[in-house]
Amino acid sequence: MEHGEIPILRSIEEVRFFTKERPLGFVPTMGCLHEGHISLVRRAREECATVIVSVFVNPLQFGSGEDFTRYPRDSERDMALAKEAGADAIFMPEAAELYPEGFTTEVRVRRIEDVLEGVARSGHFAGVATVLAKLLNIIGPESMYMGQKDAQQAFLVGRMIQDLNFSTRLVVCPTIREYDGLAMSSRNVYLKPEERSAATIISRALFTARDTGSTDPRVLEETVHNALAAEPLVALEYVFANDAATLGPVGPNTGEILLSLAARVGKTRLIDNVLVKRS
Amino acid sequence: MEHGEIPILRSIEEVRFFTKERPLGFVPTMGCLHEGHISLVRRAREECATVIVSVFVNPLQFGSGEDFTRYPRDSERDMALAKEAGADAIFMPEAAELYPEGFTTEVRVRRIEDVLEGVARSGHFAGVATVLAKLLNIIGPESMYMGQKDAQQAFLVGRMIQDLNFSTRLVVCPTIREYDGLAMSSRNVYLKPEERSAATIISRALFTARDTGSTDPRVLEETVHNALAAEPLVALEYVFANDAATLGPVGPNTGEILLSLAARVGKTRLIDNVLVKRS
Repeated sequence: MEHGEIPILRSIEEVRFFTKERPLGFVPTMGCLHEGHISLVRRAREECATVIVSVFVNPLQFGSGEDFTRYPRDSERDMALAKEAGADAIFMPEAAELYPEGFTTEVRVRRIEDVLEGVARSGHFAGVATVLAKLLNIIGPESMYMGQKDAQQAFLVGRMIQDLNFSTRLVVCPTIREYDGLAMSSRNVYLKPEERSAATIISRALFTARDTGSTDPRVLEETVHNALAAEPLVALEYVFANDAATLGPVGPNTGEILLSLAARVGKTRLIDNVLVKRS
Repeated sequence: MEHGEIPILRSIEEVRFFTKERPLGFVPTMGCLHEGHISLVRRAREECATVIVSVFVNPLQFGSGEDFTRYPRDSERDMALAKEAGADAIFMPEAAELYPEGFTTEVRVRRIEDVLEGVARSGHFAGVATVLAKLLNIIGPESMYMGQKDAQQAFLVGRMIQDLNFSTRLVVCPTIREYDGLAMSSRNVYLKPEERSAATIISRALFTARDTGSTDPRVLEETVHNALAAEPLVALEYVFANDAATLGPVGPNTGEILLSLAARVGKTRLIDNVLVKRS
């Protein structure tokens, strides 16, 4: 495992002047890199001549009661992991670099921002869309890589790219899981040992629902609901079966169903999802 | 007056494939070109290797009671005038090209969108910011040219460019006026002869206020108010003296004052402004 040195770009100007062979691949992250992020960097490395990873815990996408201040940060480790996975540079700005005094513009992806995660996390997706519009303009990548684990985020960002005519292609990569099925997440470090163990019910519930073979939204949702009810350490916040192509209700034209949930394990809020083929 | 032919780009794809020597200058318009627009095209022509003019009556920036359907349109004349002024191509899309089914993203420049014109025209500036974010991404110009006549629009777009890190430079060009001082506007064609004559009070009131030599916001506003009160065909909607650098109230650090107004002349709503140096 050879880390060596990787250029750390702190300012927008440094990014603009950084030599970028094309095509350029971009992996936006909030740091605390895990195998999920690494899989995105590797994919970018396979497809692009230059790979830039951003590490920025974006204050705009955290609500007032959320974990912005205690969100895990470990820049040294992030640098080593990004380098090892094949990144050419890391963009690691301070908040004041992206949001100087007077900053006031907001990108909203209406309707999509108001369902699923948007219900519990008011303003979250405006923060996501705004920072990504900025990062796309700053970095100017041909391709951007995001994970299917944050399915609604990927959907919403894809919609924003299309609506605002960014010329970047969005590549959504499969969720990476621990050996026991738990979806990789920077927030998994919050889990106490017994919570970590209990949390495996989340993915098992989703897989069980998928494996029923049913494509009835109620059956899928109830299967998850019932499976989670058996684990007292895990409190389901929501589970919904939506049309994966619209995030709206499943209808006669639905080809693929997004079965997604949020649950609290102790104080930690986790999300996960599976795709269920309908036809 | 030799018009010849000018390439008319109807689709986003045609714009992307249109050969653009750099630097590229861009003049966004809603068509019905007048000398104000022409001055922007000429300025772009002086500074850029390629000049693209867009002609698009943007439905997003019209309120429900406003003049979207009757807004003056004359594509043939626009093509001839743009060509004559030095444009290399015109981007003239249908609404469905920019807003296909499912379009839902909105760019907001908060606070700035809520003052002056934003009070009377709810949603107007979200429409402006959204379409310009799109046009900047589609056209990708080094410089974009807008008129000082729409002072708040130029200010808001400048803020959006800065906040979202577009790499385009915004060039704000002076208001062009008729021989008698009336600010050029596509909406001037709505005016009946006696209204057209009465409308000259608008710029005269602004010049009178500026020429008082006062930099007291109340004196400036009252001078305009009193001047317009003498003209029964012109109904003042608002007049405000703001800090031109913030659009906030004039304060001890204000260097330049934006004295701006909206007024109705018959059924036609007109805006105008002057800048007043403070120091």
